[in-house]
Amino acid sequence: MSDPSITGSSLSKGDRDIDRVTMTHGAGGRAMADLIRDVFHAALGNPWLDQGNDQAALPIPEGGSLVMSTDGFVISPLFFPGGDIGSLAVHGTVNDLAMSGARPLYLSASFILEEGLPLADLRRIVQSMAGAARDAGVAVVTGDTKVVDRGKADGVFITTAGVGVTPVGLTLSGDRARPGDGIVLSGSIGDHGMAVMAQREHLGFETTIRSDSAALNGLVAAMVSAAGPHLKLMRDPTRGGLAATLNELARQSGVGMRIDEQAIVVKAEVRAACEILGLDPIHVANEGKLIAVVAPDGVPALLAAMGAHPLGREASVIGRVVADPDGRVIMETPFGGGRLIPWMAGEQLPRIC
Amino acid sequence: MSDPSITGSSLSKGDRDIDRVTMTHGAGGRAMADLIRDVFHAALGNPWLDQGNDQAALPIPEGGSLVMSTDGFVISPLFFPGGDIGSLAVHGTVNDLAMSGARPLYLSASFILEEGLPLADLRRIVQSMAGAARDAGVAVVTGDTKVVDRGKADGVFITTAGVGVTPVGLTLSGDRARPGDGIVLSGSIGDHGMAVMAQREHLGFETTIRSDSAALNGLVAAMVSAAGPHLKLMRDPTRGGLAATLNELARQSGVGMRIDEQAIVVKAEVRAACEILGLDPIHVANEGKLIAVVAPDGVPALLAAMGAHPLGREASVIGRVVADPDGRVIMETPFGGGRLIPWMAGEQLPRIC
Repeated sequence: MSDPSITGSSLSKGDRDIDRVTMTHGAGGRAMADLIRDVFHAALGNPWLDQGNDQAALPIPEGGSLVMSTDGFVISPLFFPGGDIGSLAVHGTVNDLAMSGARPLYLSASFILEEGLPLADLRRIVQSMAGAARDAGVAVVTGDTKVVDRGKADGVFITTAGVGVTPVGLTLSGDRARPGDGIVLSGSIGDHGMAVMAQREHLGFETTIRSDSAALNGLVAAMVSAAGPHLKLMRDPTRGGLAATLNELARQSGVGMRIDEQAIVVKAEVRAACEILGLDPIHVANEGKLIAVVAPDGVPALLAAMGAHPLGREASVIGRVVADPDGRVIMETPFGGGRLIPWMAGEQLPRIC
Repeated sequence: MSDPSITGSSLSKGDRDIDRVTMTHGAGGRAMADLIRDVFHAALGNPWLDQGNDQAALPIPEGGSLVMSTDGFVISPLFFPGGDIGSLAVHGTVNDLAMSGARPLYLSASFILEEGLPLADLRRIVQSMAGAARDAGVAVVTGDTKVVDRGKADGVFITTAGVGVTPVGLTLSGDRARPGDGIVLSGSIGDHGMAVMAQREHLGFETTIRSDSAALNGLVAAMVSAAGPHLKLMRDPTRGGLAATLNELARQSGVGMRIDEQAIVVKAEVRAACEILGLDPIHVANEGKLIAVVAPDGVPALLAAMGAHPLGREASVIGRVVADPDGRVIMETPFGGGRLIPWMAGEQLPRIC
């Protein structure tokens, strides 16, 4: 339906003749049912979604624990080099599940649409989501759609929740780091955050940086298989970057961390973009990287398994866990000094995921 | 933190000295961790949430099927007679799970906060959510918080997802209605939608109508226990009201329905408010009612069980399933006539859930 009355919206205003989301799409009537069928089911279809109920009935998985996670996605812009809000919404929740060592199985997807969103954008996002889910081996089994009036959202927000199952006997948790454990990082940092920032027009620079947004469950399966009981915990350094994640883990485990600055890989163009913006890459979000804390005996096997996986090729030990009840994370510089890695209180990169 | 710069926001502007949500609360740093601890964990705390990980590891439930559901909540206003967005977000997903006959077990909760939201409002919402979860016997085991800039959301949006488990051997689904089955409605319709509409100032009327928002899992357990294999399906008539739900079910099962207008209970004040607004209560949302389709032999036991439960006291048979490949839903009037109950294409009541 064309809508000639678009004013004051954050949505693209170029083409008045394309189909857009209207309030009727959220009203519970036939327009909503048609949208769900034509856009969501067409792209995401699977036997559970196709049941057409308000919930999905699934086989009860076999394994150690049922794992559940959720993430909301409000990223701006919706499309960025290396991904979009749809693929990101799959990767984010798949990765949160995988960080527990779980095999991700099922996702739910809830959309909050702003009136006026071009239906072509929504289709592109949902198709991207479907591709990401297929690649990660998970099914989007149930969903929901709401529409809010123009100016009460920003294009589209997506919340995914996920369910997975851990292997019997595996318990990974943020409170399990102990002095002597190795801290492993799977690859370069800052790619996602800087790819998104580069897209925001007002920053006035263009680069070739692409988001690292990716599903880490394949890498995780290889890690669990290789390092098994030596593996203590994994976490993906998303919002707040490596610095926030290390500080969170140090606090949760009641330990300190010593990090070797030279062991942290930052791509040259990411470093350059960070310098322009006055950012330290350790505070910049990643969407396809993980940190693992592993007992010393497990380090060689873990690094070998990670190095053999496309998403872990640059994996390396970046530091070690030390005794420190104050939970300080210290960066050791090449010059033999050390500086505290702060846990930023404030906002560096808004709407990055 | 007080914020003197609130302009053009949909949030209340009365008190400039109260604490409000800022962009730092969504940045992944310490401010966010503090918000999560002080507001979310303080109200919702349970052993799984207290693990402090990005996911919850839960016991694998025993039963027939694992059931998963999600719903986004964008209701305006956030607070209304009989509930608020927090209790509604629990009831909505608990009910979607319960409609499959499942026992709801675990919820996730994802918050999208608008910069400037009073923290007191957020606390009240989260506490209401905690109370609703406690009453329904479910735990909020994991969550997420995002903050968007002022004018890019509307106070707070909440998406919940839930997991439950069905009894072995029970399969309820929207495609199981067959000619001859009875259609049972658990109580009066239109309460939620009219309670919310009455709150929206510009409608200019005040009533004593309260939302029926409630968790239906207790009622459902009694129904499953009483009617067991006779029960074909259940669904809660939320957005789009009774009319949309009956039409959806008729289409899904490939049957027609004949509804007895006189059997549908509408409270006098709801009917009056609907008349003022030119609405038919069959199109108005409910948040604490359900429709069940049941084989004729199961009707007496089902009605007895429902009548004995506080949320099913007014339960009655409102119609029957008939053969009709075109899936028509016909309202039979006291005068012996019949009229098609339309499946509204358009928007009647925006932002009702």
